[in-house]
Amino acid sequence: MTNTAYASLQSRFGRIAALNEAAAMLHWDASAMMPAGGGAARGEQLATLAGLAHELLTAPVVAEDLAQAHAEGEWESANLALMRRTHTRATALPTSLVEATTRANSACEKIWRDVKARADFAMVRPALTEVVALQRETAAALSVALGMAPYDALMDGYQRGVTAADVEPVFAAYEAFLAEALPRAEEIQAKRGAPVPLTGTFPVPAQKALCQALSASIGLEYDHARLDESLHPFCGGTPADVRMTTFYDEADPAKALLGVLHETGHALYERGLPASYARQPVGEAAGMAAHESQSLIVEMQACRSDAFLRFLGGELRARFGCDAAEVAPENLARLWRRVSRGFIRVDADEITYPAHVILRFRLEKAMIEGALSVADLPTAWNEGLETLLGIRPPNDAKGCLQDIHWHDGAFGYFPSYTLGAMAAAQLMKAARVAEPGLDAALAEGDMAPLLGWLRTHVHGKGSLLGFQDLLCAATGKPLDPNDFMDHLRARYLVD
Amino acid sequence: MTNTAYASLQSRFGRIAALNEAAAMLHWDASAMMPAGGGAARGEQLATLAGLAHELLTAPVVAEDLAQAHAEGEWESANLALMRRTHTRATALPTSLVEATTRANSACEKIWRDVKARADFAMVRPALTEVVALQRETAAALSVALGMAPYDALMDGYQRGVTAADVEPVFAAYEAFLAEALPRAEEIQAKRGAPVPLTGTFPVPAQKALCQALSASIGLEYDHARLDESLHPFCGGTPADVRMTTFYDEADPAKALLGVLHETGHALYERGLPASYARQPVGEAAGMAAHESQSLIVEMQACRSDAFLRFLGGELRARFGCDAAEVAPENLARLWRRVSRGFIRVDADEITYPAHVILRFRLEKAMIEGALSVADLPTAWNEGLETLLGIRPPNDAKGCLQDIHWHDGAFGYFPSYTLGAMAAAQLMKAARVAEPGLDAALAEGDMAPLLGWLRTHVHGKGSLLGFQDLLCAATGKPLDPNDFMDHLRARYLVD
Repeated sequence: MTNTAYASLQSRFGRIAALNEAAAMLHWDASAMMPAGGGAARGEQLATLAGLAHELLTAPVVAEDLAQAHAEGEWESANLALMRRTHTRATALPTSLVEATTRANSACEKIWRDVKARADFAMVRPALTEVVALQRETAAALSVALGMAPYDALMDGYQRGVTAADVEPVFAAYEAFLAEALPRAEEIQAKRGAPVPLTGTFPVPAQKALCQALSASIGLEYDHARLDESLHPFCGGTPADVRMTTFYDEADPAKALLGVLHETGHALYERGLPASYARQPVGEAAGMAAHESQSLIVEMQACRSDAFLRFLGGELRARFGCDAAEVAPENLARLWRRVSRGFIRVDADEITYPAHVILRFRLEKAMIEGALSVADLPTAWNEGLETLLGIRPPNDAKGCLQDIHWHDGAFGYFPSYTLGAMAAAQLMKAARVAEPGLDAALAEGDMAPLLGWLRTHVHGKGSLLGFQDLLCAATGKPLDPNDFMDHLRARYLVD
Repeated sequence: MTNTAYASLQSRFGRIAALNEAAAMLHWDASAMMPAGGGAARGEQLATLAGLAHELLTAPVVAEDLAQAHAEGEWESANLALMRRTHTRATALPTSLVEATTRANSACEKIWRDVKARADFAMVRPALTEVVALQRETAAALSVALGMAPYDALMDGYQRGVTAADVEPVFAAYEAFLAEALPRAEEIQAKRGAPVPLTGTFPVPAQKALCQALSASIGLEYDHARLDESLHPFCGGTPADVRMTTFYDEADPAKALLGVLHETGHALYERGLPASYARQPVGEAAGMAAHESQSLIVEMQACRSDAFLRFLGGELRARFGCDAAEVAPENLARLWRRVSRGFIRVDADEITYPAHVILRFRLEKAMIEGALSVADLPTAWNEGLETLLGIRPPNDAKGCLQDIHWHDGAFGYFPSYTLGAMAAAQLMKAARVAEPGLDAALAEGDMAPLLGWLRTHVHGKGSLLGFQDLLCAATGKPLDPNDFMDHLRARYLVD
């Protein structure tokens, strides 16, 4: 039987979630709508919302309620366990450490913005050294409170239910695969010849109409969503009111189009979360890797499939009058599935992207464990990339200065990208078995079979299960890099 | 000397204001951006923000701090006095009454939306009776706590520093003026003949560009403001980030144009509030009547002046290619300053608008004082309008069902419209004396002399002074209806 202590916690976590929803809307507004002059006041508003949410979470009565609370049933028990974990994380850190971290992250991020373009790592090194020192302190405190290794305790803040011990063999297997697969993919690509570029003009209103029509036709209900513009595209808002943004390039419709399909994957996950547990911990998405799996299953698995490219080519021709040769599926595949060894993670293709993540995972884990100093980071980075991809950054702007993450104090987040990509392939394989008509539907632009399966096996599960358990329930096994490698073999290594 | 209790109150009221700012942004979003499906979740978010703001305001420590607090200096003393008043208002009402009021208002407003078009007052009568009963209870409780008459205590919630005893002689004087002025204005208007309508097409993007250009040129900084669309135009947001909305009619550019100029008056007030008291009670606008005076001084006093209409005609000709005869200032005056006895307040002209407000003021005061029952409202309304304007509504949709205000529990608000209109005339007269070049500047579309004066005498004062004291400081006298009547005489009664 659930009891009054549990009911009181439900109500309190509901208020905390409502505050977080308000903050999510204000974050969206700040990126997509707010005039520049609103920044300082917005900072005050967001700090107040975050402060009040923290006060609600750490009030003494919460510990008392958690000690008294009983919940029965799978969902309520999971909800209570998540409440305990959230409370433990929030109370594990002394206020002085939280404040020092906030200050150090903010200071380092500001310096990073300035020095990034000048490729001057020495300028940010002292600030980053302070950030790492505080992250190590944070990891140590969370490690004690949660009973997990320090780096795992940080990773747990982004993706519950997967540890470095799960990740390491998976990444090692991928590294071995990459060493053979990448030269082979490049060879096949070279034989096929260069793609024909899309010609013509792609006015923003027509691009936007296409993005909206496609995201709607694959399942996003626009009475619960918006699509706007921002410098850095993202998917924000709340499950009942998802806010996607994109950035239009009039010379190249692919950027916005594929970007919006990616964000639509995130949006469909939010929309499919269990409404009966709205604003409760168990009703939230299962974590960052789980979220990335949903954006990538839509963008990479479904929308860049041969079947869907056929449909998409027809849309481009109808809306922009492109040449038949330009929008032929094999040409779109060459354009939008191009493999290339590069220095920059965000520009990377499906095969080389994990190399960028593996590099960062190993380096950040070593920094948190004290095995790598910030001073040695540039060299370790450059050597690591050379080992993984055979290229060496000419400067730190194309090396260890390229990402905001560490400079803003985000350690333990990077693995989510590749865990998501691998989970997407694993889920897609399971969905294809369960829904034999899935690819035939994709060729018609119809994502209903895939979406239906995802709603049952991923979206509707909320945070009931951690990452590995979610995969086990949906696919019969924990994370298995072979499904992702099989996907890449089929897409890039068939001559 | 200010003391630590005062400092603690400053900090607390700053957090309350930040919560209210967040809520203001979410209200704007709900009207201008939110997809329909976001409504229920938005309701949860807003209820949580309002609930937390109320808890912060009524926590026991606030009463202790208020008992201990000392503040020195004009602004700090006024700030502390406003904190006391806000706290008194918030703690005067038992939670059960607040909750019953919220429920009754919401239920009545829902019924009103349905029955309004059907002109069926009997359907809403029971719900409105309940609303009025609870407003009377609220007024009685506030009356005790604040030491003012019940109706005054309600009015104080919208506009501090003016009472029914101030309003009654002012409205009586206007009623006497109206009886002579209205037939005379109609007679003069009839002699002048009908205006030439604006012809041509007025595409929304061009209208929006004109609205933005004009509001910017009269002083609104768009790095601290936005202009968007909503069904019911308003000015929301925060002083650092003002959000105006309008509604475009492609057949008639005047609606959006004059509407945006009206909202710009509100926006300029918010922008001109004293930044050093941001998020403190004394840094807020002085009340609803003061706010309306600023929208009307821009829209009615400045922008519908002969001088500004000359400038505006040139803009319309340049942007839409209108005929010279159509945009001649005397034609625009006939179009946009047309006098007409009508049933609907929001469609009323400058001369008859106060009649609608006087009617509502008298009726709502009688209802709060128990001298008028809801059952007798339709008859009292129709007789009252006939006395004031000589016309009798054919049904209640054109009578006592037309406004949302009472059906949503807003009693004591209506006087603000006409107090604002009168204050606008009084302030304009004083500004003209202080700034002799004011009208010459308006003829060039330049509002700098007027705006500079308003910034010093109104905007920059925040809530330092109540309504009557603000007028005294700015114009040398409390509210005087003669300035408004003089304005109407000059504009409408000169043959």
